[in-house]
Amino acid sequence: MGKVITGATMSLDGYIAGPNESGFDLLFQWYGNGGVELPSASPTVPPSHVSAASAELVTREYASIGCLVVGRHLYDLTNAWGGHHPLDVTTVVLTHQRPVDRPDDDDDFVFVTDGIEAAVAKARQIAGEKNVVFNGGQIARQCLEAWLLDEVGIDLAPVLLGSGTPLFAGLGAVPAQLAGPFTVVQGTEVTHLRYHVRKE
Amino acid sequence: MGKVITGATMSLDGYIAGPNESGFDLLFQWYGNGGVELPSASPTVPPSHVSAASAELVTREYASIGCLVVGRHLYDLTNAWGGHHPLDVTTVVLTHQRPVDRPDDDDDFVFVTDGIEAAVAKARQIAGEKNVVFNGGQIARQCLEAWLLDEVGIDLAPVLLGSGTPLFAGLGAVPAQLAGPFTVVQGTEVTHLRYHVRKE
Repeated sequence: MGKVITGATMSLDGYIAGPNESGFDLLFQWYGNGGVELPSASPTVPPSHVSAASAELVTREYASIGCLVVGRHLYDLTNAWGGHHPLDVTTVVLTHQRPVDRPDDDDDFVFVTDGIEAAVAKARQIAGEKNVVFNGGQIARQCLEAWLLDEVGIDLAPVLLGSGTPLFAGLGAVPAQLAGPFTVVQGTEVTHLRYHVRKE
Repeated sequence: MGKVITGATMSLDGYIAGPNESGFDLLFQWYGNGGVELPSASPTVPPSHVSAASAELVTREYASIGCLVVGRHLYDLTNAWGGHHPLDVTTVVLTHQRPVDRPDDDDDFVFVTDGIEAAVAKARQIAGEKNVVFNGGQIARQCLEAWLLDEVGIDLAPVLLGSGTPLFAGLGAVPAQLAGPFTVVQGTEVTHLRYHVRKE
């Protein structure tokens, strides 16, 4: 069985977005400042260009992803990535209500309306031996609080935002202790750190 | 002339203290989980015991410190470290009013009542060719906002606190972009990261 992982690009002072959804240009510099092109399977998302060190790491990680899980907010915000996720994997969307223009699930998008545990179970079934990956934010926090998360990946940007959206805002007390980092890779304007969640 | 540096132990989600001044046991595990003793010059602060990797780095950094700058809150909270700072260097205390039991400055404590720039100037004078080091928190933020800071050191603990005191809470817009890390050292339950402040 694969692992359940979340990842986020975070500022050095702990924010995944600045005030009023600002700061993305600073946070995501590393997606555009390198010489290695990472292709996009989405018709509306351009390829990224990362450093060789970042490319070596994330290419390996992307290849291990069997299913993504996102919240409805991101699905709507990206306009469903033009119909196909950049990473070319099935995306489970956790939502209160299925979109009217998507009466059926398909290889691109699967909708789950009965909570985080059901979303993880569905994603695990789709991923098989591969990993399930959550975007950072509120549903990653719920996943962590439900003890469903195995790893946390932080792409730490050398940027101070001062305020904004914290990594796991309002996290309950457990689990507070991670183990690692078991991977430290220095890219250009980013430090990739990977941690295990301690479940003992 | 030496550099002006701030450093803090920070949780993976960006807090230097948990809610209601909690979480220090988790944050500061790295000060007690290793085999190398770092002596304390304070009569009330015990020596710490850090990993060999942490010891190699911080011993070198401690030796380069010519003067510390702290806020009055920390001075009071520690009861003036029993009269002598653990690192055996002169400590400039930024305060609104000199403590009544300290009518004169001495080699242990120097009091500055006329603001952050005066505190840095005084500390630079004391430090000479060595570095001036600020504890993280509000006065480090003021120092950063006044463009007086040259380096930021983060000791990143693999801990999630969920809420608490952010690294540079309420930081103004500049400087938002750092450079680095120029140093990455993995200790036990800590990743030491050192950044330059970009002043261009």
